[in-house]
Amino acid sequence: MSLVLAMRRRVLHNGSLSARLAFVVVALVCQLDVAGAREAGRPNVIVIVADDLGYADVGFNGCRDIPTPHLDALAAEGVRFTNGYVTFPVCSPSRAGLITGRYQQRFGHERNPIYNPADDQMGLPLTETTLADVLGSAGYVSGAIGKWHLGAHDVFHPLNRGFNEFFGFLTGGHEYFPDRWTLRGGGFHWEGYRTLLQRDWEFVEEKEYLTDALSREAVAFVRRHRDEPFFLYLCYNAPHTPLQAPQETLEKFRHIRNEKRRTYAAMVSVMDDGVGRLLAELDALDLDEQTLVFFLSDNGGPENANASDNGPLRGQKGDVFEGGIRVPFVVRWRGVVPARDSYEEPVSALDIFATAATQAGALASIPIERPIDGVDLTPFLTGRQAGPPHDSLYWRSFDRGAWAIRTGAEKLLRPRRDEEQLLFNLEQDLSESTNQSSERPGDARQLESSWREWEQQMIDPAFLGLESIKQYRKQWQR
Amino acid sequence: MSLVLAMRRRVLHNGSLSARLAFVVVALVCQLDVAGAREAGRPNVIVIVADDLGYADVGFNGCRDIPTPHLDALAAEGVRFTNGYVTFPVCSPSRAGLITGRYQQRFGHERNPIYNPADDQMGLPLTETTLADVLGSAGYVSGAIGKWHLGAHDVFHPLNRGFNEFFGFLTGGHEYFPDRWTLRGGGFHWEGYRTLLQRDWEFVEEKEYLTDALSREAVAFVRRHRDEPFFLYLCYNAPHTPLQAPQETLEKFRHIRNEKRRTYAAMVSVMDDGVGRLLAELDALDLDEQTLVFFLSDNGGPENANASDNGPLRGQKGDVFEGGIRVPFVVRWRGVVPARDSYEEPVSALDIFATAATQAGALASIPIERPIDGVDLTPFLTGRQAGPPHDSLYWRSFDRGAWAIRTGAEKLLRPRRDEEQLLFNLEQDLSESTNQSSERPGDARQLESSWREWEQQMIDPAFLGLESIKQYRKQWQR
Repeated sequence: MSLVLAMRRRVLHNGSLSARLAFVVVALVCQLDVAGAREAGRPNVIVIVADDLGYADVGFNGCRDIPTPHLDALAAEGVRFTNGYVTFPVCSPSRAGLITGRYQQRFGHERNPIYNPADDQMGLPLTETTLADVLGSAGYVSGAIGKWHLGAHDVFHPLNRGFNEFFGFLTGGHEYFPDRWTLRGGGFHWEGYRTLLQRDWEFVEEKEYLTDALSREAVAFVRRHRDEPFFLYLCYNAPHTPLQAPQETLEKFRHIRNEKRRTYAAMVSVMDDGVGRLLAELDALDLDEQTLVFFLSDNGGPENANASDNGPLRGQKGDVFEGGIRVPFVVRWRGVVPARDSYEEPVSALDIFATAATQAGALASIPIERPIDGVDLTPFLTGRQAGPPHDSLYWRSFDRGAWAIRTGAEKLLRPRRDEEQLLFNLEQDLSESTNQSSERPGDARQLESSWREWEQQMIDPAFLGLESIKQYRKQWQR
Repeated sequence: MSLVLAMRRRVLHNGSLSARLAFVVVALVCQLDVAGAREAGRPNVIVIVADDLGYADVGFNGCRDIPTPHLDALAAEGVRFTNGYVTFPVCSPSRAGLITGRYQQRFGHERNPIYNPADDQMGLPLTETTLADVLGSAGYVSGAIGKWHLGAHDVFHPLNRGFNEFFGFLTGGHEYFPDRWTLRGGGFHWEGYRTLLQRDWEFVEEKEYLTDALSREAVAFVRRHRDEPFFLYLCYNAPHTPLQAPQETLEKFRHIRNEKRRTYAAMVSVMDDGVGRLLAELDALDLDEQTLVFFLSDNGGPENANASDNGPLRGQKGDVFEGGIRVPFVVRWRGVVPARDSYEEPVSALDIFATAATQAGALASIPIERPIDGVDLTPFLTGRQAGPPHDSLYWRSFDRGAWAIRTGAEKLLRPRRDEEQLLFNLEQDLSESTNQSSERPGDARQLESSWREWEQQMIDPAFLGLESIKQYRKQWQR
């Protein structure tokens, strides 16, 4: 395909008339081959990430007060993961795992980076390869839209990490209304929330509510690249704080008494509308069967901060309890992955990379000294391959001294440094309420030893990040 | 590719001159695409199976008295699996697992079938899909050469199980010199050892020593199908009993005092020569980089029966000790899988199906109600994917009441019904000499419970097979 594209460029620009005609004939025939290749793989890839969305805050997971018809349709046409996990309970490390396909502790990305002019080490280590790098080498065009949060210095900019296009902001969050965006620089930490958006490297003026702007750009990206394989990484910062929603949407949620929850609901609803516009565009361009779409939250809802709801799950953002790491998670690939109500085996955000790269035929671009940890989910979802994709999944939160392992239905975790280990059977005890570690010490020991084996391959955090904000502020002001 | 081939047939046979010319132009261009596709997958597939070959009876596993230069070259250019397993310690169930990519206990193929005119149920259940079926639907031509042993009735014949060509014999073994082949029918049990070979459905005369005849046919198959994707399933019956070798090869092994071992050595040597001729033909046809080659034994050596040697491994053919199930096992895919001395993670003969079908882009032909158990080894061997391909491997021998599970370095097994369970750490104790089950009862319990979970998915044997030979003989003679 990339060969044909390269030829097209060369022939159509420089070729004689007869060469052009010959090209058209050949291209028409090869088109058949390309269609065949699409069927057998090489789908477009769209990854939609929500920010701090609670497990129970989408219709497909049982939410009652916030209608999410477009996300629900995506789930109905695809597969809802009931045991879908991210690799970390806060934003940036979770995204680092997703975009590299590797446990981010392998390369020390275990804290939220902040923008600090004096420290240009805070971002996705340059040793790592992104999904955009890998798909790019297979001829995909890649666009990052929305929240980046993998480093705000130039070296970490999406255009330096395999993406061809960028529209959004580099920091960990953003205010939603453009009239509050005043800064033209990176913006140190929270000040970044008010920095103008960037298109590629340029700061640009914007008029729309942020979530709508991101949806608009996503639709435009797909339309612009309809004729070539593309990877769209669409990261809404909704419904992360600050809680800010358009008045007209708030009106629709008058019935929600709690003001925080009302604003949160409106923010989720605007995001759902945006997803709907994007999916409608795919339909209109007849790309819906050629496009692998993932939707997930980057971590569990921080229930106190944004009035999100993790439903029956214990804990919230920041925790290695289920409420911090199990997220709303959907995949849709019409015509390849049959629609089903749900897939119950544990899957990981790490699998997004593996699935996309495998189906794009791009695995060979992964550097062998940095192998991925995810699994191509396709044969499991089509039912060709038996068994669970993962035997075990692992978590570590270095600063909190927290860790967890899930093997089958069994989960062992330590919520914080110096706290006792807790053992749960998630099939019988979804809410992690009855600790069985003293009842079944042998099982706990076994799980702990598996976790330690995994942890031996990990390194300490490579940068200080958000944790050391005060130290940085002092340094910076000096 | 198959589209282009189909077009070629249609156009070249029926087309006008201009259509033919146009086709040539298009084909030349598409050839580039095909070459690309080959690089990214769709290799030819050759699976070479030896019969009852001991773990330590090949140079690449340290054998000193039998030179196997061609198998050693294959290993040197590819990867030697030091922990390569088959799914059963005797012939037919092991092959049933290999050719379906599924634990054969899922469909009751747990005994060696025999030929009995009165029972046409003894063979690979017709519910199952073979690798030839799946690759065939992706446009591959498939040939089975040598020992079949997946059922001798017409319904089980290779040409009824996805293969386009067959040269060999349907039963579990064969005499080696054609002057002893006299029968023209299936041949009940041992009598099958003297049945003429078949080419497709016809019984044919043969002049060569059996192993040489199979090598000759393998070379011819590859030469005949050099221009299309092919799957060659080459099953030597060497060095299975009866121990019969050509005089001139025996001369070369005069230095081996033990007559049985001398004959065995000569049989292995002739097989190695044949593999050499096949690999040389691949080279000559310039197909060596487009061909995925596996070599393995169907089970461990029966040391007493054929003087084979399983080296440091305990037990032999029939046992769920390592000597029965860990086999010489090599993969080579030049240009895709980098050569390395060895790959140490446990792999299974089940992975051959998954690797071939995945790389051929043929997974979609696997019926979803019969998912495979193997794993595509390619990303592990190229180093793109981290971790072991399998968390656990499982064995059961119903008639013996034996079973085993391996998880990481830990192995729990029961050698026979009513015998005690044995726990070993294979990294520290390759020879399974120090039982740790009373020392570590918790670990043993854990492994047993994993094994029982696996076994719940299996069924009882579906046919009587070799075990009931007397009963069958009585029935047949009545």
